Amino acid sequence: MRMALFHTIIDTFALDKGLKVIDRGSKEDMEKKHGNEEIGEENITAALKSLRETVDLKEFYAANMEITKKGIKESVSDDSFIVQAINNIDDVTKVSNILTKRLREWYELYNPEFSESIANNDKFVDLIIKKKKSELLKEIKSDGAMGAELSAEDLAPIIALANEVLSLRKLKDIQEDYIEGKMKDLAPNVTAIAGAIIGAKLLEHVGTLKRLMMLPSSTIQLLGAEKALFRHLVTGAKCPKFGVIFNHPLVAISKNKGKAARLIADKISIAAKVDYFKGEFIGDKLRKELEKKIS
Amino acid sequence: MRMALFHTIIDTFALDKGLKVIDRGSKEDMEKKHGNEEIGEENITAALKSLRETVDLKEFYAANMEITKKGIKESVSDDSFIVQAINNIDDVTKVSNILTKRLREWYELYNPEFSESIANNDKFVDLIIKKKKSELLKEIKSDGAMGAELSAEDLAPIIALANEVLSLRKLKDIQEDYIEGKMKDLAPNVTAIAGAIIGAKLLEHVGTLKRLMMLPSSTIQLLGAEKALFRHLVTGAKCPKFGVIFNHPLVAISKNKGKAARLIADKISIAAKVDYFKGEFIGDKLRKELEKKIS
Repeated sequence: MRMALFHTIIDTFALDKGLKVIDRGSKEDMEKKHGNEEIGEENITAALKSLRETVDLKEFYAANMEITKKGIKESVSDDSFIVQAINNIDDVTKVSNILTKRLREWYELYNPEFSESIANNDKFVDLIIKKKKSELLKEIKSDGAMGAELSAEDLAPIIALANEVLSLRKLKDIQEDYIEGKMKDLAPNVTAIAGAIIGAKLLEHVGTLKRLMMLPSSTIQLLGAEKALFRHLVTGAKCPKFGVIFNHPLVAISKNKGKAARLIADKISIAAKVDYFKGEFIGDKLRKELEKKIS
Repeated sequence: MRMALFHTIIDTFALDKGLKVIDRGSKEDMEKKHGNEEIGEENITAALKSLRETVDLKEFYAANMEITKKGIKESVSDDSFIVQAINNIDDVTKVSNILTKRLREWYELYNPEFSESIANNDKFVDLIIKKKKSELLKEIKSDGAMGAELSAEDLAPIIALANEVLSLRKLKDIQEDYIEGKMKDLAPNVTAIAGAIIGAKLLEHVGTLKRLMMLPSSTIQLLGAEKALFRHLVTGAKCPKFGVIFNHPLVAISKNKGKAARLIADKISIAAKVDYFKGEFIGDKLRKELEKKIS
Protein backbone atom coordinates (compact mmCIF):
# COMPACT_ATOMS: atom_id res chain seq x y z
CA MET A 1 0.00 0.00 0.00
CA ARG A 2 1.37 3.40 -0.96
CA MET A 3 1.66 6.14 1.61
CA ALA A 4 1.38 9.90 1.25
CA LEU A 5 2.79 12.46 3.66
CA PHE A 6 0.94 15.54 4.90
CA HIS A 7 3.08 18.25 6.52
CA THR A 8 1.42 20.46 9.14
CA ILE A 9 2.67 22.90 11.74
CA ILE A 10 2.59 20.30 14.51
CA ASP A 11 3.85 17.16 12.82
CA THR A 12 4.12 15.32 9.56
CA PHE A 13 1.33 12.76 9.15
CA ALA A 14 1.44 9.60 7.08
CA LEU A 15 -1.88 8.80 5.42
CA ASP A 16 -2.89 5.61 3.70
CA LYS A 17 -4.75 5.48 0.39
CA GLY A 18 -8.11 5.89 2.13
CA LEU A 19 -6.58 9.07 3.65
CA LYS A 20 -6.68 7.66 7.15
CA VAL A 21 -3.91 8.76 9.50
CA ILE A 22 -1.67 5.79 10.29
CA ASP A 23 1.50 7.42 11.61
CA ARG A 24 2.88 10.76 12.74
CA GLY A 25 6.28 12.20 13.63
CA SER A 26 8.93 14.67 12.48
CA LYS A 27 9.35 15.30 8.76
CA GLU A 28 12.65 13.37 8.66
CA ASP A 29 11.32 10.29 10.49
CA MET A 30 8.25 10.04 8.31
CA GLU A 31 10.21 10.42 5.09
CA LYS A 32 12.60 7.70 6.21
CA LYS A 33 9.79 5.31 7.07
CA HIS A 34 7.18 6.04 4.42
CA GLY A 35 8.94 7.65 1.45
CA ASN A 36 8.58 11.29 0.48
CA GLU A 37 5.46 11.40 -1.61
CA GLU A 38 3.13 14.22 -0.55
CA ILE A 39 -0.61 14.25 -0.85
CA GLY A 40 -1.87 16.12 -3.88
CA GLU A 41 -3.72 19.41 -3.63
CA GLU A 42 -6.94 17.72 -4.68
CA ASN A 43 -6.86 15.61 -1.52
CA ILE A 44 -6.19 18.35 1.01
CA THR A 45 -9.82 18.84 2.04
CA ALA A 46 -10.32 15.16 2.65
CA ALA A 47 -6.96 14.86 4.46
CA LEU A 48 -7.87 17.73 6.76
CA LYS A 49 -11.17 16.07 7.59
CA SER A 50 -9.40 12.86 8.47
CA LEU A 51 -6.85 14.76 10.55
CA ARG A 52 -9.65 16.41 12.45
CA GLU A 53 -10.92 13.04 13.55
CA THR A 54 -7.60 11.88 14.93
CA VAL A 55 -5.85 14.98 16.22
CA ASP A 56 -6.96 17.29 19.01
CA LEU A 57 -7.37 20.80 17.57
CA LYS A 58 -5.78 22.25 20.70
CA GLU A 59 -2.46 20.95 19.48
CA PHE A 60 -2.79 23.08 16.37
CA TYR A 61 -3.83 26.07 18.40
CA ALA A 62 -0.81 25.72 20.71
CA ALA A 63 1.63 25.28 17.81
CA ASN A 64 0.13 28.26 16.03
CA MET A 65 0.48 30.40 19.15
CA GLU A 66 4.11 29.38 19.43
CA ILE A 67 4.84 30.41 15.85
CA THR A 68 2.98 33.70 16.21
CA LYS A 69 4.78 34.55 19.45
CA LYS A 70 8.11 33.83 17.84
CA GLY A 71 7.10 36.01 14.89
CA ILE A 72 6.16 38.86 17.15
CA LYS A 73 9.36 38.48 19.14
CA GLU A 74 11.44 38.61 15.98
CA SER A 75 9.48 41.46 14.43
CA VAL A 76 10.80 43.79 17.14
CA SER A 77 14.00 45.27 15.80
CA ASP A 78 16.25 48.17 16.69
CA ASP A 79 14.27 50.27 14.24
CA SER A 80 11.19 49.92 16.45
CA PHE A 81 13.00 51.27 19.49
CA ILE A 82 14.40 54.22 17.61
CA VAL A 83 10.94 55.04 16.22
CA GLN A 84 9.38 54.87 19.70
CA ALA A 85 12.13 57.03 21.18
CA ILE A 86 11.90 59.70 18.51
CA ASN A 87 8.11 59.73 18.81
CA ASN A 88 8.51 60.10 22.53
CA ILE A 89 10.73 63.14 22.01
CA ASP A 90 7.94 64.72 19.98
CA ASP A 91 5.47 63.87 22.75
CA VAL A 92 7.71 65.34 25.43
CA THR A 93 8.21 68.55 23.44
CA LYS A 94 4.45 68.93 23.03
CA VAL A 95 3.75 68.15 26.67
CA SER A 96 6.48 70.45 27.86
CA ASN A 97 5.00 73.32 25.83
CA ILE A 98 1.57 72.77 27.38
CA LEU A 99 3.01 72.88 30.89
CA THR A 100 5.33 75.84 30.22
CA LYS A 101 2.40 77.85 28.88
CA ARG A 102 0.49 77.17 32.09
CA LEU A 103 3.60 77.91 34.18
CA ARG A 104 4.00 81.30 32.54
CA GLU A 105 0.33 82.19 33.00
CA TRP A 106 0.42 81.18 36.65
CA TYR A 107 3.77 82.80 37.41
CA GLU A 108 2.65 86.03 35.77
CA LEU A 109 0.20 86.58 38.59
CA TYR A 110 3.27 86.92 40.77
CA ASN A 111 5.94 88.44 38.55
CA PRO A 112 4.60 89.53 35.15
CA GLU A 113 7.60 91.70 34.13
CA PHE A 114 10.01 88.81 34.42
CA SER A 115 7.97 86.37 32.38
CA GLU A 116 7.54 89.04 29.75
CA SER A 117 11.26 89.80 29.54
CA ILE A 118 12.57 86.23 29.20
CA ALA A 119 11.34 84.76 25.93
CA ASN A 120 13.42 81.58 26.14
CA ASN A 121 11.42 78.90 27.95
CA ASP A 122 14.39 76.90 29.23
CA LYS A 123 16.06 79.94 30.70
CA PHE A 124 12.77 81.08 32.21
CA VAL A 125 12.24 77.79 34.00
CA ASP A 126 15.84 77.58 35.25
CA LEU A 127 15.77 81.08 36.68
CA ILE A 128 12.47 80.91 38.51
CA ILE A 129 13.49 77.66 40.16
CA LYS A 130 16.79 79.04 41.37
CA LYS A 131 16.19 82.68 42.21
CA LYS A 132 13.98 84.84 44.32
CA LYS A 133 11.61 87.39 42.87
CA SER A 134 13.72 90.34 44.05
CA GLU A 135 16.84 88.94 42.36
CA LEU A 136 14.94 88.32 39.15
CA LEU A 137 13.57 91.84 39.11
CA LYS A 138 17.05 93.26 39.70
CA GLU A 139 18.32 91.20 36.79
CA ILE A 140 15.86 92.63 34.30
CA LYS A 141 16.24 96.13 35.84
CA SER A 142 12.53 96.56 36.42
CA ASP A 143 11.41 99.46 38.60
CA GLY A 144 8.46 98.59 40.78
CA ALA A 145 7.01 95.12 40.61
CA MET A 146 3.50 94.63 39.35
CA GLY A 147 2.48 91.15 40.49
CA ALA A 148 0.91 90.12 43.76
CA GLU A 149 3.08 89.25 46.74
CA LEU A 150 2.83 85.51 47.28
CA SER A 151 3.22 83.46 50.41
CA ALA A 152 5.58 80.48 50.28
CA GLU A 153 2.49 78.29 50.32
CA ASP A 154 1.15 79.89 47.13
CA LEU A 155 4.55 79.71 45.42
CA ALA A 156 5.11 76.03 46.18
CA PRO A 157 2.77 74.59 43.50
CA ILE A 158 4.24 76.97 40.90
CA ILE A 159 7.78 75.87 41.69
CA ALA A 160 6.63 72.23 41.66
CA LEU A 161 5.29 72.78 38.15
CA ALA A 162 8.56 74.42 37.07
CA ASN A 163 10.50 71.44 38.43
CA GLU A 164 8.28 69.13 36.41
CA VAL A 165 9.08 71.06 33.23
CA LEU A 166 12.78 70.78 34.10
CA SER A 167 12.42 67.06 34.64
CA LEU A 168 10.73 66.71 31.24
CA ARG A 169 13.73 68.44 29.67
CA LYS A 170 16.04 65.93 31.35
CA LEU A 171 13.89 63.09 30.04
CA LYS A 172 14.27 64.52 26.55
CA ASP A 173 18.05 64.53 26.99
CA ILE A 174 17.99 60.88 28.05
CA GLN A 175 15.94 59.91 25.00
CA GLU A 176 18.21 61.90 22.69
CA ASP A 177 21.33 60.23 24.07
CA TYR A 178 19.65 56.86 23.64
CA ILE A 179 18.75 57.61 20.02
CA GLU A 180 22.28 58.83 19.36
CA GLY A 181 23.75 55.54 20.61
CA LYS A 182 21.19 53.39 18.80
CA MET A 183 21.55 55.23 15.52
CA LYS A 184 25.34 54.92 15.61
CA ASP A 185 24.93 51.16 16.01
CA LEU A 186 22.17 50.66 13.48
CA ALA A 187 23.06 53.20 10.83
CA PRO A 188 26.51 54.75 11.42
CA ASN A 189 26.77 56.18 7.92
CA VAL A 190 23.32 57.78 7.91
CA THR A 191 24.08 59.21 11.35
CA ALA A 192 27.40 60.65 10.18
CA ILE A 193 25.66 62.49 7.35
CA ALA A 194 22.28 63.44 8.78
CA GLY A 195 22.92 63.44 12.52
CA ALA A 196 21.16 61.08 14.92
CA ILE A 197 17.92 63.03 15.33
CA ILE A 198 17.27 63.76 11.65
CA GLY A 199 18.27 60.18 10.81
CA ALA A 200 15.84 58.86 13.41
CA LYS A 201 13.07 61.12 12.09
CA LEU A 202 13.61 59.74 8.59
CA LEU A 203 13.34 56.24 10.06
CA GLU A 204 10.17 57.26 11.89
CA HIS A 205 8.57 58.25 8.58
CA VAL A 206 9.31 54.99 6.80
CA GLY A 207 9.39 52.57 9.75
CA THR A 208 12.54 50.54 9.08
CA LEU A 209 16.06 50.96 7.74
CA LYS A 210 15.23 48.46 5.00
CA ARG A 211 12.44 50.62 3.67
CA LEU A 212 14.62 53.74 3.92
CA MET A 213 17.34 51.93 1.99
CA MET A 214 14.91 51.11 -0.82
CA LEU A 215 13.69 54.68 -1.31
CA PRO A 216 15.04 56.87 -4.13
CA SER A 217 16.87 59.93 -2.85
CA SER A 218 14.15 62.22 -4.23
CA THR A 219 11.68 60.59 -1.86
CA ILE A 220 14.09 60.84 1.07
CA GLN A 221 14.43 64.54 0.29
CA LEU A 222 10.68 65.02 0.76
CA LEU A 223 10.04 62.71 3.74
CA GLY A 224 8.11 64.77 6.26
CA ALA A 225 6.72 67.12 3.58
CA GLU A 226 3.88 64.80 2.55
CA LYS A 227 1.18 67.38 3.12
CA ALA A 228 2.88 69.98 0.92
CA LEU A 229 3.64 67.34 -1.69
CA PHE A 230 0.01 66.29 -1.98
CA ARG A 231 -1.08 69.89 -2.08
CA HIS A 232 1.35 70.30 -4.97
CA LEU A 233 -0.08 67.27 -6.76
CA VAL A 234 -3.72 68.15 -6.18
CA THR A 235 -3.86 71.91 -6.46
CA GLY A 236 -0.71 72.60 -8.47
CA ALA A 237 0.83 74.63 -5.63
CA LYS A 238 4.63 74.90 -5.49
CA CYS A 239 6.45 71.60 -5.00
CA PRO A 240 8.12 71.35 -1.56
CA LYS A 241 11.93 71.20 -1.60
CA PHE A 242 12.56 69.48 1.73
CA GLY A 243 10.88 67.70 4.60
CA VAL A 244 12.72 66.49 7.69
CA ILE A 245 16.05 67.39 6.05
CA PHE A 246 15.21 71.08 6.38
CA ASN A 247 16.57 70.97 9.95
CA HIS A 248 20.00 69.82 8.76
CA PRO A 249 22.73 72.36 9.66
CA LEU A 250 24.07 72.34 6.10
CA VAL A 251 20.66 73.40 4.77
CA ALA A 252 20.63 76.25 7.27
CA ILE A 253 23.95 77.71 6.07
CA SER A 254 23.27 77.18 2.37
CA LYS A 255 21.90 79.89 0.12
CA ASN A 256 20.25 77.46 -2.26
CA LYS A 257 18.39 75.37 0.28
CA GLY A 258 16.62 73.20 -2.27
CA LYS A 259 19.89 72.18 -3.85
CA ALA A 260 21.49 71.51 -0.47
CA ALA A 261 18.55 69.30 0.51
CA ARG A 262 18.87 67.36 -2.74
CA LEU A 263 22.60 66.77 -2.19
CA ILE A 264 22.08 65.67 1.41
CA ALA A 265 19.29 63.29 0.41
CA ASP A 266 21.60 61.80 -2.24
CA LYS A 267 24.25 61.00 0.33
CA ILE A 268 21.71 59.68 2.85
CA SER A 269 20.36 57.36 0.20
CA ILE A 270 23.86 55.94 -0.42
CA ALA A 271 24.60 55.75 3.31
CA ALA A 272 21.34 53.89 4.03
CA LYS A 273 22.24 51.23 1.50
CA VAL A 274 25.72 50.80 2.99
CA ASP A 275 24.26 50.63 6.51
CA TYR A 276 21.60 48.10 5.62
CA PHE A 277 24.11 45.73 4.02
CA LYS A 278 26.56 46.28 6.88
CA GLY A 279 29.16 47.86 4.62
CA GLU A 280 32.22 49.76 5.77
CA PHE A 281 32.05 53.13 7.45
CA ILE A 282 32.22 55.74 4.71
CA GLY A 283 30.14 58.37 6.50
CA ASP A 284 33.04 60.76 7.07
CA LYS A 285 34.06 60.64 3.42
CA LEU A 286 30.50 61.26 2.23
CA ARG A 287 30.07 64.05 4.72
CA LYS A 288 33.26 65.75 3.55
CA GLU A 289 32.17 65.56 -0.10
CA LEU A 290 28.86 67.04 0.93
CA GLU A 291 30.40 69.92 2.86
CA LYS A 292 32.66 70.71 -0.09
CA LYS A 293 29.75 70.83 -2.51
CA ILE A 294 27.44 72.89 -0.34
CA SER A 295 29.71 75.53 1.17
CA MET B 1 -8.11 137.40 42.25
CA ARG B 2 -10.14 134.16 42.60
CA MET B 3 -8.42 130.78 42.25
CA ALA B 4 -9.72 127.48 40.92
CA LEU B 5 -8.30 124.05 41.76
CA PHE B 6 -7.67 121.30 39.21
CA HIS B 7 -7.14 117.80 40.63
CA THR B 8 -5.01 115.40 38.58
CA ILE B 9 -3.36 112.08 39.28
CA ILE B 10 0.00 113.70 40.07
CA ASP B 11 -0.93 116.79 42.04
CA THR B 12 -3.57 119.36 42.60
CA PHE B 13 -2.91 122.53 40.59
CA ALA B 14 -4.07 126.04 41.40
CA LEU B 15 -5.02 128.05 38.33
CA ASP B 16 -5.69 131.78 38.13
CA LYS B 17 -8.58 133.33 36.22
CA GLY B 18 -6.57 133.21 32.97
CA LEU B 19 -6.16 129.48 33.65
CA LYS B 20 -2.43 129.81 34.13
CA VAL B 21 -0.82 127.42 36.63
CA ILE B 22 0.42 129.37 39.60
CA ASP B 23 0.83 126.72 42.29
CA ARG B 24 0.83 122.95 42.80
CA GLY B 25 0.85 120.53 45.74
CA SER B 26 -1.24 117.98 47.55
CA LYS B 27 -5.02 118.37 47.57
CA GLU B 28 -5.04 119.38 51.28
CA ASP B 29 -2.31 121.99 50.92
CA MET B 30 -3.91 123.60 47.89
CA GLU B 31 -7.36 123.71 49.51
CA LYS B 32 -5.87 125.31 52.60
CA LYS B 33 -4.02 127.95 50.57
CA HIS B 34 -6.42 128.66 47.74
CA GLY B 35 -9.91 127.61 48.84
CA ASN B 36 -11.79 124.64 47.45
CA GLU B 37 -13.39 125.95 44.30
CA GLU B 38 -12.82 123.59 41.37
CA ILE B 39 -12.62 124.56 37.73
CA GLY B 40 -15.86 123.95 35.86
CA GLU B 41 -16.23 121.34 33.20
CA GLU B 42 -16.39 124.00 30.52
CA ASN B 43 -12.80 125.04 31.33
CA ILE B 44 -11.20 121.58 31.36
CA THR B 45 -9.88 121.71 27.78
CA ALA B 46 -8.26 125.08 28.35
CA ALA B 47 -6.89 124.00 31.74
CA LEU B 48 -5.34 120.87 30.24
CA LYS B 49 -3.69 122.96 27.57
CA SER B 50 -2.21 125.28 30.17
CA LEU B 51 -1.05 122.27 32.24
CA ARG B 52 0.68 120.85 29.23
CA GLU B 53 2.82 123.95 28.96
CA THR B 54 4.01 123.87 32.56
CA VAL B 55 4.16 120.17 33.49
CA ASP B 56 6.39 117.51 31.99
CA LEU B 57 4.16 114.77 30.53
CA LYS B 58 6.55 112.15 31.87
CA GLU B 59 5.25 112.91 35.33
CA PHE B 60 1.77 111.90 34.23
CA TYR B 61 3.10 108.81 32.55
CA ALA B 62 4.93 107.73 35.68
CA ALA B 63 1.96 108.40 37.93
CA ASN B 64 -0.32 106.51 35.56
CA MET B 65 2.04 103.54 35.55
CA GLU B 66 2.05 103.55 39.32
CA ILE B 67 -1.75 103.44 39.46
CA THR B 68 -1.95 100.70 36.81
CA LYS B 69 0.65 98.57 38.56
CA LYS B 70 -1.21 98.89 41.82
CA GLY B 71 -4.42 97.94 40.02
CA ILE B 72 -2.80 94.85 38.54
CA LYS B 73 -1.33 93.91 41.88
CA GLU B 74 -4.70 94.17 43.54
CA SER B 75 -6.55 92.36 40.77
CA VAL B 76 -4.74 89.13 41.68
CA SER B 77 -6.88 87.36 44.22
CA ASP B 78 -7.06 83.89 45.71
CA ASP B 79 -9.60 83.02 43.03
CA SER B 80 -6.92 83.45 40.37
CA PHE B 81 -4.59 80.95 42.04
CA ILE B 82 -7.32 78.39 42.43
CA VAL B 83 -8.30 78.77 38.77
CA GLN B 84 -4.67 78.36 37.65
CA ALA B 85 -4.18 75.32 39.87
CA ILE B 86 -7.35 73.57 38.69
CA ASN B 87 -6.44 74.33 35.07
CA ASN B 88 -3.02 72.90 35.73
CA ILE B 89 -4.59 69.70 37.02
CA ASP B 90 -6.47 69.40 33.72
CA ASP B 91 -3.20 70.03 31.85
CA VAL B 92 -1.34 67.43 33.87
CA THR B 93 -4.08 64.85 33.32
CA LYS B 94 -3.95 65.45 29.57
CA VAL B 95 -0.17 65.37 29.45
CA SER B 96 0.01 62.29 31.57
CA ASN B 97 -2.37 60.49 29.21
CA ILE B 98 -0.21 61.36 26.19
CA LEU B 99 2.90 60.00 27.88
CA THR B 100 1.21 56.88 29.25
CA LYS B 101 -0.07 56.01 25.79
CA ARG B 102 3.48 56.24 24.44
CA LEU B 103 4.82 54.28 27.43
CA ARG B 104 2.41 51.44 26.75
CA GLU B 105 3.23 51.33 23.05
CA TRP B 106 6.94 51.30 23.74
CA TYR B 107 6.78 48.80 26.60
CA GLU B 108 4.64 46.48 24.51
CA LEU B 109 7.62 45.79 22.25
CA TYR B 110 9.14 44.20 25.33
CA ASN B 111 6.25 42.73 27.27
CA PRO B 112 2.93 42.90 25.39
CA GLU B 113 1.00 40.46 27.59
CA PHE B 114 1.56 42.52 30.68
CA SER B 115 0.48 45.83 29.18
CA GLU B 116 -2.63 44.10 27.81
CA SER B 117 -3.56 42.58 31.16
CA ILE B 118 -3.29 45.71 33.32
CA ALA B 119 -5.91 48.22 32.25
CA ASN B 120 -5.30 50.68 35.08
CA ASN B 121 -2.63 53.18 34.07
CA ASP B 122 -1.41 54.03 37.56
CA LYS B 123 -0.97 50.40 38.51
CA PHE B 124 0.74 49.70 35.19
CA VAL B 125 3.32 52.44 35.74
CA ASP B 126 3.98 51.47 39.35
CA LEU B 127 4.56 47.83 38.49
CA ILE B 128 6.89 48.29 35.55
CA ILE B 129 9.06 50.68 37.55
CA LYS B 130 9.39 48.29 40.46
CA LYS B 131 9.45 44.80 38.99
CA LYS B 132 11.37 42.74 36.49
CA LYS B 133 9.76 41.25 33.41
CA SER B 134 9.87 37.69 34.77
CA GLU B 135 8.09 38.73 37.95
CA LEU B 136 5.43 40.58 36.00
CA LEU B 137 4.80 37.61 33.75
CA LYS B 138 4.49 35.34 36.74
CA GLU B 139 1.98 37.74 38.24
CA ILE B 140 -0.35 37.58 35.27
CA LYS B 141 0.32 33.84 34.85
CA SER B 142 1.33 34.14 31.21
CA ASP B 143 2.97 31.12 29.63
CA GLY B 144 5.71 32.03 27.17
CA ALA B 145 6.57 35.68 26.72
CA MET B 146 6.00 37.30 23.37
CA GLY B 147 8.04 40.50 23.44
CA ALA B 148 11.67 40.97 22.52
CA GLU B 149 14.38 40.50 25.10
CA LEU B 150 15.79 43.92 25.90
CA SER B 151 19.20 44.93 27.13
CA ALA B 152 19.39 47.19 30.17
CA GLU B 153 20.41 49.97 27.81
CA ASP B 154 17.19 49.61 25.79
CA LEU B 155 15.05 49.43 28.92
CA ALA B 156 16.53 52.55 30.52
CA PRO B 157 14.66 55.14 28.41
CA ILE B 158 11.38 53.26 28.93
CA ILE B 159 11.82 53.25 32.69
CA ALA B 160 12.82 56.93 32.55
CA LEU B 161 9.52 57.66 30.79
CA ALA B 162 7.60 55.65 33.39
CA ASN B 163 9.28 57.63 36.18
CA GLU B 164 8.22 60.84 34.46
CA VAL B 165 4.60 59.69 34.43
CA LEU B 166 4.91 58.87 38.12
CA SER B 167 6.35 62.30 38.81
CA LEU B 168 3.41 63.90 36.96
CA ARG B 169 1.04 62.00 39.22
CA LYS B 170 2.85 63.37 42.26
CA LEU B 171 2.61 66.89 40.82
CA LYS B 172 -1.14 66.39 40.47
CA ASP B 173 -1.33 65.40 44.15
CA ILE B 174 0.58 68.53 45.14
CA GLN B 175 -1.81 70.72 43.14
CA GLU B 176 -4.85 68.97 44.57
CA ASP B 177 -3.63 69.45 48.13
CA TYR B 178 -2.99 73.10 47.35
CA ILE B 179 -6.49 73.56 45.95
CA GLU B 180 -7.97 71.80 48.96
CA GLY B 181 -6.22 74.22 51.34
CA LYS B 182 -7.05 77.28 49.27
CA MET B 183 -10.70 76.35 48.82
CA LYS B 184 -11.13 75.77 52.55
CA ASP B 185 -9.79 79.27 53.17
CA LEU B 186 -11.66 81.06 50.42
CA ALA B 187 -14.94 79.17 50.35
CA PRO B 188 -15.28 76.79 53.30
CA ASN B 189 -19.02 76.36 52.87
CA VAL B 190 -18.87 75.61 49.15
CA THR B 191 -16.03 73.18 49.82
CA ALA B 192 -18.01 71.40 52.54
CA ILE B 193 -20.90 70.82 50.14
CA ALA B 194 -19.21 70.31 46.76
CA GLY B 195 -15.71 69.19 47.72
CA ALA B 196 -12.57 71.15 46.85
CA ILE B 197 -12.14 69.95 43.27
CA ILE B 198 -15.74 70.38 42.13
CA GLY B 199 -15.85 73.74 43.93
CA ALA B 200 -12.66 74.83 42.18
CA LYS B 201 -14.03 73.67 38.82
CA LEU B 202 -17.14 75.78 39.35
CA LEU B 203 -14.86 78.73 40.14
CA GLU B 204 -12.85 78.02 37.00
CA HIS B 205 -16.00 78.32 34.91
CA VAL B 206 -17.06 81.69 36.31
CA GLY B 207 -13.67 83.14 37.27
CA THR B 208 -14.34 84.52 40.75
CA LEU B 209 -16.27 83.68 43.90
CA LYS B 210 -18.15 86.95 43.50
CA ARG B 211 -19.51 85.90 40.14
CA LEU B 212 -20.36 82.43 41.45
CA MET B 213 -22.22 84.02 44.33
CA MET B 214 -24.33 86.09 41.95
CA LEU B 215 -25.45 83.17 39.82
CA PRO B 216 -28.87 81.56 40.27
CA SER B 217 -28.65 77.93 41.36
CA SER B 218 -30.09 76.77 38.04
CA THR B 219 -27.04 78.21 36.30
CA ILE B 220 -24.67 76.65 38.83
CA GLN B 221 -26.34 73.30 38.13
CA LEU B 222 -25.42 73.56 34.45
CA LEU B 223 -21.91 75.09 34.70
CA GLY B 224 -19.69 72.92 32.55
CA ALA B 225 -22.56 71.73 30.36
CA GLU B 226 -22.57 74.82 28.15
CA LYS B 227 -22.22 72.86 24.94
CA ALA B 228 -25.19 70.62 25.68
CA LEU B 229 -27.20 73.62 26.85
CA PHE B 230 -26.66 75.52 23.63
CA ARG B 231 -27.44 72.40 21.63
CA HIS B 232 -30.71 72.26 23.58
CA LEU B 233 -31.47 75.89 22.85
CA VAL B 234 -30.55 75.73 19.16
CA THR B 235 -31.70 72.31 18.03
CA GLY B 236 -34.28 71.50 20.70
CA ALA B 237 -32.28 68.49 21.92
CA LYS B 238 -32.78 67.35 25.52
CA CYS B 239 -31.83 69.91 28.15
CA PRO B 240 -28.75 68.84 30.16
CA LYS B 241 -29.36 68.15 33.83
CA PHE B 242 -25.85 68.71 35.20
CA GLY B 243 -22.39 69.96 34.32
CA VAL B 244 -19.44 69.89 36.68
CA ILE B 245 -21.76 68.75 39.49
CA PHE B 246 -22.18 65.39 37.77
CA ASN B 247 -18.95 64.23 39.45
CA HIS B 248 -20.37 64.85 42.92
CA PRO B 249 -20.53 61.63 44.96
CA LEU B 250 -24.14 62.29 45.94
CA VAL B 251 -25.14 62.42 42.27
CA ALA B 252 -23.42 59.11 41.73
CA ILE B 253 -25.44 57.30 44.43
CA SER B 254 -28.73 58.95 43.58
CA LYS B 255 -31.33 57.32 41.37
CA ASN B 256 -32.76 60.61 40.16
CA LYS B 257 -29.51 62.29 39.14
CA GLY B 258 -31.16 65.40 37.76
CA LYS B 259 -32.98 66.05 41.01
CA ALA B 260 -29.82 65.42 43.03
CA ALA B 261 -27.89 67.88 40.88
CA ARG B 262 -30.61 70.50 41.39
CA LEU B 263 -30.55 70.06 45.17
CA ILE B 264 -26.74 70.24 45.30
CA ALA B 265 -26.69 73.37 43.13
CA ASP B 266 -29.25 74.95 45.49
CA LYS B 267 -27.01 74.43 48.48
CA ILE B 268 -23.88 75.55 46.61
CA SER B 269 -25.66 78.74 45.67
CA ILE B 270 -26.48 79.45 49.33
CA ALA B 271 -22.96 78.48 50.44
CA ALA B 272 -21.32 80.76 47.85
CA LYS B 273 -23.26 83.73 49.17
CA VAL B 274 -22.30 82.94 52.77
CA ASP B 275 -18.65 82.48 51.75
CA TYR B 276 -18.48 85.70 49.77
CA PHE B 277 -19.85 87.78 52.64
CA LYS B 278 -17.61 85.91 55.11
CA GLY B 279 -20.55 84.47 56.99
CA GLU B 280 -20.38 81.71 59.56
CA PHE B 281 -19.55 78.14 58.67
CA ILE B 282 -22.85 76.39 57.92
CA GLY B 283 -21.42 73.91 55.41
CA ASP B 284 -21.86 70.87 57.65
CA LYS B 285 -25.48 71.73 58.33
CA LEU B 286 -26.23 72.27 54.62
CA ARG B 287 -24.44 69.06 53.70
CA LYS B 288 -26.47 67.09 56.23
CA GLU B 289 -29.74 68.49 54.90
CA LEU B 290 -28.60 67.57 51.43
CA GLU B 291 -27.67 64.00 52.36
CA LYS B 292 -31.02 63.55 54.07
CA LYS B 293 -32.93 64.73 51.00
CA ILE B 294 -30.98 62.74 48.48
CA SER B 295 -30.48 59.38 50.16
